[in-house]
Amino acid sequence: MTGTRLRFTKMHGAGNDFIVLNGISQDLSGITKEQWARLAHRQLGIGADQILLVEKPTVAEAEFRYRIFNSDGGEVEQCGNGSRCFVRFVREKGLTKNKTVKVQVAHTILSLTENDDGQVTVNMGAPILTNERIPFTSSGLQEKIEGKTNLYQLELSDHAVWINAVSMGNPHAVQIVQDVDTAPVAKDGPQIETHLAFPKKVNAGFMQIQNRHEIKLRVFERGSGETLACGTGACAAVVSGILRGHLDSPVTVHTRGGDLSIAWNSASSAQNPVMMTGPAQTVFEGEITLD
Amino acid sequence: MTGTRLRFTKMHGAGNDFIVLNGISQDLSGITKEQWARLAHRQLGIGADQILLVEKPTVAEAEFRYRIFNSDGGEVEQCGNGSRCFVRFVREKGLTKNKTVKVQVAHTILSLTENDDGQVTVNMGAPILTNERIPFTSSGLQEKIEGKTNLYQLELSDHAVWINAVSMGNPHAVQIVQDVDTAPVAKDGPQIETHLAFPKKVNAGFMQIQNRHEIKLRVFERGSGETLACGTGACAAVVSGILRGHLDSPVTVHTRGGDLSIAWNSASSAQNPVMMTGPAQTVFEGEITLD
Repeated sequence: MTGTRLRFTKMHGAGNDFIVLNGISQDLSGITKEQWARLAHRQLGIGADQILLVEKPTVAEAEFRYRIFNSDGGEVEQCGNGSRCFVRFVREKGLTKNKTVKVQVAHTILSLTENDDGQVTVNMGAPILTNERIPFTSSGLQEKIEGKTNLYQLELSDHAVWINAVSMGNPHAVQIVQDVDTAPVAKDGPQIETHLAFPKKVNAGFMQIQNRHEIKLRVFERGSGETLACGTGACAAVVSGILRGHLDSPVTVHTRGGDLSIAWNSASSAQNPVMMTGPAQTVFEGEITLD
Repeated sequence: MTGTRLRFTKMHGAGNDFIVLNGISQDLSGITKEQWARLAHRQLGIGADQILLVEKPTVAEAEFRYRIFNSDGGEVEQCGNGSRCFVRFVREKGLTKNKTVKVQVAHTILSLTENDDGQVTVNMGAPILTNERIPFTSSGLQEKIEGKTNLYQLELSDHAVWINAVSMGNPHAVQIVQDVDTAPVAKDGPQIETHLAFPKKVNAGFMQIQNRHEIKLRVFERGSGETLACGTGACAAVVSGILRGHLDSPVTVHTRGGDLSIAWNSASSAQNPVMMTGPAQTVFEGEITLD
């Protein structure tokens, strides 16, 4: 479908940016993987971390369905920052009047709520803490217990770091640092990402604890490098800090893209879901002709 | 001037991308440095390498004036890829019917011509080949003569490279490589960029010679890292290749963002200007509200 004129909205949620397309008023079914990648290209297209395609649901329980395409054009399953943008989009465009929107994403129905201040709360699911499911191979690593969790030592090129392994659907290796601004994210990030203990690689989180309800966080994302904000990284860092005994829910996470608030009621069960609240903002409106 | 609604056009010239604003039909005089930087920000704004602001000229000889803002919001003097986008913009928007457009840029009047195939030719000025003006300090470096130029050896962390130093208003260290696709641009680029022989740092060019009229080029840009295409880098590489005796004008330069054609009639004088011909393309139209 070349030559088609598309209307789109560019949005961001704490610095994680999205092209949002209304696939109800426009027929976008013929867009190829190469065209999605071209749209997401920062020089040759619109530019974005991901594309959100809003569609009619295929199940009765949901008001909408949305699909997510990565910047390489491939379809993926989940994105916390994207779901906040989705809610703002359907409300700003008048596609729904409901404050809580049920939406079909991959094989799940998410329930997303826009708060009175415009922030959106997303249920991110329970953290995954078993090594096999993260996946994480601890054999051969130095180990110690802190609070309710085990820490493991990763040897890097010129020093060693103690990390906590947590999955929020994607694996994270979280460490505590004294000063997040001077932390060696660019140097250590790639070494942690590709450490043999993580067979599917890992996101590397660097967390500075400011007080029991506030942290500063930088994340070196698997396959992407450092990003402005990582929703699952914020959840994993707070889960790690609570398990280690340094944090109490809720926790404000300061990222370079903005603040996220993470709540995890783990007292009754570590299987309780992590709730993430954060901003979503429209940046501009545009029209593009598909090549 | 917050709350103002701006119309803009997003363009690229061989992968070097620009936000182009019509400052004749819109009053943009109150935009601050922070707002320019925000507009150029890839997640929080529209995203671009640079912003072109098209205005009425302040001198009688020119039809237009344009100003250029870098992604940090600072105003700069010149950009070859940007001037191609400028010509396409004023012609596509019907702001002129002339194929050759005289435009005031910084303290110069440029004469820019759109060819029948839509490509645009830009006079890039004469190359600067004297060490002091590049600036380049060759003392202590190994040296050899090839064709009409001197090559110098730069010691890097694990090997040494022979480079040619050329300025096109900004300094370039150009080397010939066997295979540009496997050249160690990411590893060697930062070491060349910050080599002590270049007191104002340098752009590092990696050129693969395919035949006397065709090269493949990658450039590690000073302060930016590898970019899709670098207009001055293409000029510097062709000047170097002609001086070394490997190339004849005109030369097609294949970059990752597209092809540029570089002509340099150096037989009569090395002070003849380098002419660059290349594409310029509109990507999309948009509207944004200034924060």
